[in-house]
Amino acid sequence: MRVFIIKANEAHTDFDFSLKDLPGTSGRIDLICRALNAAFHLSHSFRKNVRVYVTFLGPPDPPKTIRFEGPKIRPKILNPDEISIAKVIGKALKVGRNIRNPTKEVEVLPGIFISRMTFEDVVRRNVKMNLYLLEEGGKDISNLVFPKDNLAFILGDHLGLTKEDLSFLEGIAEKISIGPKAYLTSHVISFVNIYLDRVGIP
Amino acid sequence: MRVFIIKANEAHTDFDFSLKDLPGTSGRIDLICRALNAAFHLSHSFRKNVRVYVTFLGPPDPPKTIRFEGPKIRPKILNPDEISIAKVIGKALKVGRNIRNPTKEVEVLPGIFISRMTFEDVVRRNVKMNLYLLEEGGKDISNLVFPKDNLAFILGDHLGLTKEDLSFLEGIAEKISIGPKAYLTSHVISFVNIYLDRVGIP
Repeated sequence: MRVFIIKANEAHTDFDFSLKDLPGTSGRIDLICRALNAAFHLSHSFRKNVRVYVTFLGPPDPPKTIRFEGPKIRPKILNPDEISIAKVIGKALKVGRNIRNPTKEVEVLPGIFISRMTFEDVVRRNVKMNLYLLEEGGKDISNLVFPKDNLAFILGDHLGLTKEDLSFLEGIAEKISIGPKAYLTSHVISFVNIYLDRVGIP
Repeated sequence: MRVFIIKANEAHTDFDFSLKDLPGTSGRIDLICRALNAAFHLSHSFRKNVRVYVTFLGPPDPPKTIRFEGPKIRPKILNPDEISIAKVIGKALKVGRNIRNPTKEVEVLPGIFISRMTFEDVVRRNVKMNLYLLEEGGKDISNLVFPKDNLAFILGDHLGLTKEDLSFLEGIAEKISIGPKAYLTSHVISFVNIYLDRVGIP
């Protein structure tokens, strides 16, 4: 399984945004939609071996975490375009309104779960995985020998991770880098997915 | 300069589509928007050394080609999200209605040009570049030594290139591949951009 853990610092935690203007009204859920496209979509095919956690930390009711479980998702539900994916996110956030228990996950659609987990909760849940933190200045990806399974990659959004996040992840996740520039979250996921295909990781 | 040449087999050639449903009404201009995002956007920065040609071949008035000229585009005009980019494309297609001369380019916005060029016209215009055709089964990208400049990459959309296209490109463009699966156009562009950064191509 390939896991991507994304911290969305400003992404709205209820479906209070306009699908006509995701960048301006949703706390950059457009970016999350592209990240999900990059994580799951192949040409005329779907990556069943991928799991994505996105933690939403914007207004009005943070935190919310949506888990996208590749083996269970019906590919037709998660289309490649931003608006379709934003609608799925919106639907999940609506269901999330009524959750009280901080660790309970509710299945909104097959393979799509919402909860009140924090970013730290998500990382702790994955602490037995081989955890990598995508960070400028990390060890170059070509210098790593990846295990065949249980890989989890942690990424920030346009605002990145805070000092507190980095301090929390110290010693838990290995800092790695994919290239000499600062890349968009979705581009990093595309590159990592294709890189892992190239080196024969299932 | 890095050039990406994209053939969009069904993309509409007038602004007759709905921004609310790009996949269903535009001949997959959503895919083109993500390809442009992948070509130009970095985290908080813009790739000024990139040029993209997209040839639109869908109804009602094919062909139309839009050229996006990185050095001249104002980054604020080409936002990362699909809807913003689709609006720019729509604006260009509107201007394209009145072009009669098949080789004339009209500048719609700084660095954004529309013409009636065909896909073959675009390839011929770039024939002095080092031309690469992204194709499953092509030579693996790691087996190439890229020249430092004048690289042009040809890509299809969800429908790919036709037998006629491949026959036309035979001997003009070298077939290359980025990995063992069939990837989305935007993911290929992300990968190629980052790969070129990694091997030190400006």
